[in-house]
Amino acid sequence: MKILDRIKTLEQLKPALYQKDFFLTWEKSDDDLKAILEVAGILKQMREANISPRVYDSGLAVSIFRDKSTRTRFSFASAANLLGLAVQDMDEEKSQISHGETVRETANMISFLTDFIGIRDDMFLGEGNKYMRKVGSALDEGSKEKVLSSRPGIINLQCDMDHPTQSLADLAHLKNQFGSLEALKGKKMVMSWAYSPSYGKPLSVPQGIIALMTRFGMNVELAYPEGYDLIPEIVKLAGTNATRSGGSFIISHSMDEAVKDADIVYPKSWAPFHIMQKRTELLKNKDSRGLNELEQQALLNNAKFKDWEYTAERMQLTKNQDALYMHCLPADISGVSCKEGEVEADVFEKYRIQTYHEAGYKPYIIAAMMFANKYENPAAVLQNIFKRKLKRELCQ
Amino acid sequence: MKILDRIKTLEQLKPALYQKDFFLTWEKSDDDLKAILEVAGILKQMREANISPRVYDSGLAVSIFRDKSTRTRFSFASAANLLGLAVQDMDEEKSQISHGETVRETANMISFLTDFIGIRDDMFLGEGNKYMRKVGSALDEGSKEKVLSSRPGIINLQCDMDHPTQSLADLAHLKNQFGSLEALKGKKMVMSWAYSPSYGKPLSVPQGIIALMTRFGMNVELAYPEGYDLIPEIVKLAGTNATRSGGSFIISHSMDEAVKDADIVYPKSWAPFHIMQKRTELLKNKDSRGLNELEQQALLNNAKFKDWEYTAERMQLTKNQDALYMHCLPADISGVSCKEGEVEADVFEKYRIQTYHEAGYKPYIIAAMMFANKYENPAAVLQNIFKRKLKRELCQ
Amino acid sequence: MKILDRIKTLEQLKPALYQKDFFLTWEKSDDDLKAILEVAGILKQMREANISPRVYDSGLAVSIFRDKSTRTRFSFASAANLLGLAVQDMDEEKSQISHGETVRETANMISFLTDFIGIRDDMFLGEGNKYMRKVGSALDEGSKEKVLSSRPGIINLQCDMDHPTQSLADLAHLKNQFGSLEALKGKKMVMSWAYSPSYGKPLSVPQGIIALMTRFGMNVELAYPEGYDLIPEIVKLAGTNATRSGGSFIISHSMDEAVKDADIVYPKSWAPFHIMQKRTELLKNKDSRGLNELEQQALLNNAKFKDWEYTAERMQLTKNQDALYMHCLPADISGVSCKEGEVEADVFEKYRIQTYHEAGYKPYIIAAMMFANKYENPAAVLQNIFKRKLKRELCQ
Repeated sequence: MKILDRIKTLEQLKPALYQKDFFLTWEKSDDDLKAILEVAGILKQMREANISPRVYDSGLAVSIFRDKSTRTRFSFASAANLLGLAVQDMDEEKSQISHGETVRETANMISFLTDFIGIRDDMFLGEGNKYMRKVGSALDEGSKEKVLSSRPGIINLQCDMDHPTQSLADLAHLKNQFGSLEALKGKKMVMSWAYSPSYGKPLSVPQGIIALMTRFGMNVELAYPEGYDLIPEIVKLAGTNATRSGGSFIISHSMDEAVKDADIVYPKSWAPFHIMQKRTELLKNKDSRGLNELEQQALLNNAKFKDWEYTAERMQLTKNQDALYMHCLPADISGVSCKEGEVEADVFEKYRIQTYHEAGYKPYIIAAMMFANKYENPAAVLQNIFKRKLKRELCQ
Repeated sequence: MKILDRIKTLEQLKPALYQKDFFLTWEKSDDDLKAILEVAGILKQMREANISPRVYDSGLAVSIFRDKSTRTRFSFASAANLLGLAVQDMDEEKSQISHGETVRETANMISFLTDFIGIRDDMFLGEGNKYMRKVGSALDEGSKEKVLSSRPGIINLQCDMDHPTQSLADLAHLKNQFGSLEALKGKKMVMSWAYSPSYGKPLSVPQGIIALMTRFGMNVELAYPEGYDLIPEIVKLAGTNATRSGGSFIISHSMDEAVKDADIVYPKSWAPFHIMQKRTELLKNKDSRGLNELEQQALLNNAKFKDWEYTAERMQLTKNQDALYMHCLPADISGVSCKEGEVEADVFEKYRIQTYHEAGYKPYIIAAMMFANKYENPAAVLQNIFKRKLKRELCQ
Repeated sequence: MKILDRIKTLEQLKPALYQKDFFLTWEKSDDDLKAILEVAGILKQMREANISPRVYDSGLAVSIFRDKSTRTRFSFASAANLLGLAVQDMDEEKSQISHGETVRETANMISFLTDFIGIRDDMFLGEGNKYMRKVGSALDEGSKEKVLSSRPGIINLQCDMDHPTQSLADLAHLKNQFGSLEALKGKKMVMSWAYSPSYGKPLSVPQGIIALMTRFGMNVELAYPEGYDLIPEIVKLAGTNATRSGGSFIISHSMDEAVKDADIVYPKSWAPFHIMQKRTELLKNKDSRGLNELEQQALLNNAKFKDWEYTAERMQLTKNQDALYMHCLPADISGVSCKEGEVEADVFEKYRIQTYHEAGYKPYIIAAMMFANKYENPAAVLQNIFKRKLKRELCQ
């Protein structure tokens, strides 16, 4: 579609993203999410057409990574840079951050000339999202008290509950693969647990997927070995979403059963909810012996389910033996990145480039979140950007 | 005041900051300091009015943090970004820096396309400021020898002697709170030691405060438990400044006495001068046992003065029971960030937002230092910036 | 020479650098190398004349440093910034990078909106250059599969074989010192091993020097104590180059003999080839005891050759007692940065400023590599830049 046509599509939507933080997809309306996808798509097309969508002459985008990150770190940096912001990383080891009360202080101290704050905090169940909101409240106060001349927007770069920049990149990929969001209706998507030799992987990806994909009329199946539950409230929400959208949501405990006739499969490891709860408690108590024991126990338990691998054989069970394979990357590929893992090497290889495309939406999803937070009428601003003819590569 | 009126005020001043490093406030004239405050105020107003004061199309601002930092790190990054410079952190762990002679080499190696270097070096008494000057001499040589096409300006982001970006942000806050620098005349300001459960805090904040505030006709009182002296030369300088400005400067050893009728109180912990001297020696000798012993001894000594806490009761003794409370942050707040600390939680809470405002001047103070170093006639350049109508947010 | 005249000189050359990675100087034609020097010189003059050669409105330059770096880090950052790109460092400790297969994945994940990737990987013999090419192949695939809308260029910031940004900066320095590349014909240049108290220094500098300088008709002599060989293929290449260019290339084992009548001396320590081979093997096997033993053995062996120091006495043997002393810095200066080292303090001091000038070309060499990769006709683009009158310092 042409850029101007996409802008017209965007004009039809009524998003309420202006000056709002992006914490959880399920706090956003369908129009909000569709607007993010449209803005992301337009920004992507613009950049590929050498049109610079820069809207800032200066300004900072602060990133706070409380866990490791490659993809999201570079996506955030790329998004900020595309819009004209410089990234300043808040490295807690190099800062004077202590604990408790000072979150509200630090939030203001890093925000005097800041436009956005991106936060990854996915280690502790019950903590990450709470932390982001604490930062948000502090910024609200700072803004109200005129400490901050403008209130930076917060973008959730993965928490204990959701990973919205990932799930929306995934949705953008699905939209592109199937042609439209409409075309997703009735499609069977399987979010399946898969074996990994590591432990303690966040729940936010599977939770984000089931909460988001159930909103578009898909038949979503969540499959995992008994005991590997997700946060109950989010599972419940997926059910409600499915009912509302005319899709379905079921939970099952056999990978073989689940992948049968699937259009889309998303095999990915995660830690069981109750393990993550124990882990959070032990981490709070700094009980390193307890943590070690828990890890051993969890790895032993995982090892019982090495059979939860997405194999060529299982692929044969899917729709046309060719369900779209998805992953947030990096995947644990058997014989490649580990001995035994989430997916057989040949199967991964078949869809590898597609997973790269999937990941490629993330910078634009983040840029779109920023853009939609910044402008009440993103379509109008994008039209002006289109008209002003500023090039990204100036001499081309 | 309107921006153009402030520019007119600035025009009246005769600063000599052009192409000069900013090491210590007491090397600068009153007009220098007033010019910094004016430029900072103008830049702040411009940004809030969506006028971009960017003066560089490219260029680097290098930061060297030899101690932890949040506020100053982000202030420096914000200032550089506002003027159009990219920040490049000189992380000594990731560099090939060794010791001794190579300061002069490294200074040049990081400066080929660099416009400013900001340095925090506050750990060793007798070292930090010396190090900055060593960097300065190396840059002078590099510039003279045409190694560098232009000579980067140095900004002291805290040394063993002074913390000028902090004390000038504090002064900007006072000016704003009391209406003008004139209005500060005759006001009683108490720079008081306060108890903290940590040890080894730099002397640069209290030293910076007494050396700066005595220049504006205030009655400055420095209060601390016997033994917690500051660098004698700087204390002497505070006395001389007070005499010259028509204010006063006294030292006392009771917090109760000191805060009586105070207009402004600044209760903040620091390590005693003689402890810092010993510490520097032990650090040089890498005597970790000696350092441990010194820490124990110092903490024990500190503990004798837990009563040096700024409490509600003491606040009652101040002018109108409401002296302006100041702090460079983070404060050690009793029951919040530590068990027993510098200030009672309720007292801190009452002035908390004001301390955030106080901190909010720092990015602009740093930007003003850069600006005044760069332009012989800052008022004229600011006028051109005002006229050129470049927006900070381009699409607003 | 005037900028426009230099652009005319550049027009005469037929470089084939467009959209090509820069891995090794010996993969590049003479015109390629001359074009890099010309573009670098023009960019330097432009910046010094306050002309901004910025060609990007946004975009990332990613750096991957798998070894420590000061000079090259800042050079890369400066070059990227000069052209309008923001630097994003790929810190492998903060990323999810694991081993093996994922290089091809990571290469794409960091490249969605990236224009250049600079890589330093000089620790393992037989690995560094290979790694860069692996990244390159991954980007080729990503580009072909439209994962990447444009294919980032790779710049070798030092590998196990070559250090092209260094050797070309060295060549720029020589060109400037002797007036032209033509003037280098018949000059005697000695690349000599020198003693250092450290061990394991990469071979890439001496290899880069002998492979490059033999192409310009110089008489290059490589001198080292028996056993301190370089990679045989590169030594062979130096011989072939010399024959082709009408110069000469010999290997000798006495510093005294080598420096006799030399026009240029480059005394610099490196580890012997066979030690580096063993080291690579031990590192792969994570044999820390073996590594310790190897280090001890290597240091003991080094110590036999403390006499390989460039002294005033040896300087007396050179042409006019004043051969140009070169070093990539930091040098091990006897009595300054170490007890006994590569060069006597007085000798180093005499040429110290010249080594700074030498280093000062590096940011422009890197920028030129980017520029020549980006534009098929760099002369034409430089002419447009010259005409458009964009200032680097906007208000000057």
